[in-house]
Amino acid sequence: MVEKIIPDIVVGRLPIYLRALQRMMEENRRVTSSQELGERLGISAAQIRKDLSQFGEFGKQGTGYAIEYLAEQISKILKVDRVWDMAVIGAGDIGSAVARYQGFANRGLRVASIFDSDPAKIGTKVGPFTVRDSQKLKNSIRKAGIQIAMIATPSQAAQAIAEQLVAAGVKAILNYAPINLSVPEDVRVQYVDPVIHLQRMTYYL
Amino acid sequence: MVEKIIPDIVVGRLPIYLRALQRMMEENRRVTSSQELGERLGISAAQIRKDLSQFGEFGKQGTGYAIEYLAEQISKILKVDRVWDMAVIGAGDIGSAVARYQGFANRGLRVASIFDSDPAKIGTKVGPFTVRDSQKLKNSIRKAGIQIAMIATPSQAAQAIAEQLVAAGVKAILNYAPINLSVPEDVRVQYVDPVIHLQRMTYYL
Repeated sequence: MVEKIIPDIVVGRLPIYLRALQRMMEENRRVTSSQELGERLGISAAQIRKDLSQFGEFGKQGTGYAIEYLAEQISKILKVDRVWDMAVIGAGDIGSAVARYQGFANRGLRVASIFDSDPAKIGTKVGPFTVRDSQKLKNSIRKAGIQIAMIATPSQAAQAIAEQLVAAGVKAILNYAPINLSVPEDVRVQYVDPVIHLQRMTYYL
Repeated sequence: MVEKIIPDIVVGRLPIYLRALQRMMEENRRVTSSQELGERLGISAAQIRKDLSQFGEFGKQGTGYAIEYLAEQISKILKVDRVWDMAVIGAGDIGSAVARYQGFANRGLRVASIFDSDPAKIGTKVGPFTVRDSQKLKNSIRKAGIQIAMIATPSQAAQAIAEQLVAAGVKAILNYAPINLSVPEDVRVQYVDPVIHLQRMTYYL
């Protein structure tokens, strides 16, 4: 059977649907509709139905979606029905905030280790983690089989770190350094740069 | 003259172009091409030319783009050729990291104040800022004429804070709380949730 290729833009909306469904579960809700989801998310109901239909039949005409079931199915599709270990590189303000972030729980992700190159930081505690020497990053990540990393180093260091991560077998990088990374095609990078989001809004002020 | 409506997706790419051009300026580069920009950014050269042509003629066939000039023009378009004051709400790990973030400099943005509701935090220092009482947020932001805010509160508090910000005249919100906000149509919200980015990548692992 040929696997259907799903557009990345559709894949990108699934985590947003999942977050909204998990919020509804916290509100002890049982059933929702594409209309309600759409209103919460500012996405049209038709778009949501179309996106979800790419993966199967999750709701019935007239009865809507069972929230818990749909959340489980989307978790499976996104492969976050398990827990992925992640490495954080850079124990500055942002790296430390990320390492201590409570928001990964129940969302399929867990910080496993944090690295820094600064001798003053190596060995200190960040939340429950002891900061490790980033010179040992490659072996340590390879040995642990970690496939996801977050880069929170200064911009100048980010590309070299990315190359070490790739050499260690990392396939997904969330980059907080405000610089574009060059990586092989089989490695995915997503960017978090608050300025990019803010400048997109100043245009409209 | 009727102003041309530019698709938001095009507006959203301009900050990425600007960041790459500013990086080239730091490398003391003078001239670039849509090909080179495209390779750096993983965007096709044709797309870049098409995006920029929506705003005017910035390059010449065969000679490429003058980097400094193009950066200036994009800064003007995005209205970051001035400096916007921003308020940060929430002085926890993420709010504090954002308030101390060095990456806003020279990008048209500046943190002006930080607020929290926790009596233990009010009056303490975060970087150069003294944490202020978020009960006074509305008056303080209105008086200062601040139009941009970043929410870094727990999820449960975020919607109420957003409503106060809107009442104070804020038109652009960067939301770090992992929850969708409901705001009037003339207010823009962008979201920073690392899990959303990470789950978009786990799909491919």
